Amino acid sequence: MRIAQFTPPGSTAEIEEGHVLMPKFDANGLLTAVAIDAGTKDVLMVAHMNAEALERTLTTGQAWYWSRSRGSLWLKGETSGQIQTIKEIRVDCDQDCLLLTVEVGSDGGCCHTGRRQCFYRRVEGLSDDGIVQLATI
Amino acid sequence: MRIAQFTPPGSTAEIEEGHVLMPKFDANGLLTAVAIDAGTKDVLMVAHMNAEALERTLTTGQAWYWSRSRGSLWLKGETSGQIQTIKEIRVDCDQDCLLLTVEVGSDGGCCHTGRRQCFYRRVEGLSDDGIVQLATI
Repeated sequence: MRIAQFTPPGSTAEIEEGHVLMPKFDANGLLTAVAIDAGTKDVLMVAHMNAEALERTLTTGQAWYWSRSRGSLWLKGETSGQIQTIKEIRVDCDQDCLLLTVEVGSDGGCCHTGRRQCFYRRVEGLSDDGIVQLATI
Repeated sequence: MRIAQFTPPGSTAEIEEGHVLMPKFDANGLLTAVAIDAGTKDVLMVAHMNAEALERTLTTGQAWYWSRSRGSLWLKGETSGQIQTIKEIRVDCDQDCLLLTVEVGSDGGCCHTGRRQCFYRRVEGLSDDGIVQLATI
């Protein structure tokens, strides 16, 4: 099925309590998308979707994003094999953010640096000169 | 401690593999922040931080955000009592997104609609006319 056009945002009640997806794309035409692992619930990555990426995600069952750095649609895992198969999509209260529960193909990785998730460093502390230090997990 | 200025982004290697926080604020001066519950790992909300919100979060141990709709700094829970106490902060590979692990005060709620998390609806399916249907969880 092709979704010609998503339903535009309605009233606050329709957006927050309704049962129709009314994605609130930002000024650049993007939603934020958070992908979590279906097994572990780990947050794997945060990326963006434009209308076409969302449509492809909904119709194919695989996560498509919009690459802001490359300025192009991006089937996650097309090159690496780390395809994200959609198990569930949730939308937040104001419908500008999606939460994707995914199963990752191939070796289960996600990050282009080779890690399983993009969040592989934690804030460790502040040094005396105000630098915020990170530790690799 | 006051962090006068965050370290500006360096080389790709420094950003991706380094141990210094170099937040990559967007054109509006914002980072994306995902808050998850320390106990359940549920994704509670996605919001934004400017430099001052990040500084206050780091120095107070409570989540501060930048409200895009109100155009102001926002101590989450200041009115509701649903203060988010920071247990861990992680940063992603390109340092434009933070993952906050939080303990929520008061009744443990998060969403302004009264729910425990902002992601209380899932995509249920596509109707014949291309409308994307949601179900409340």
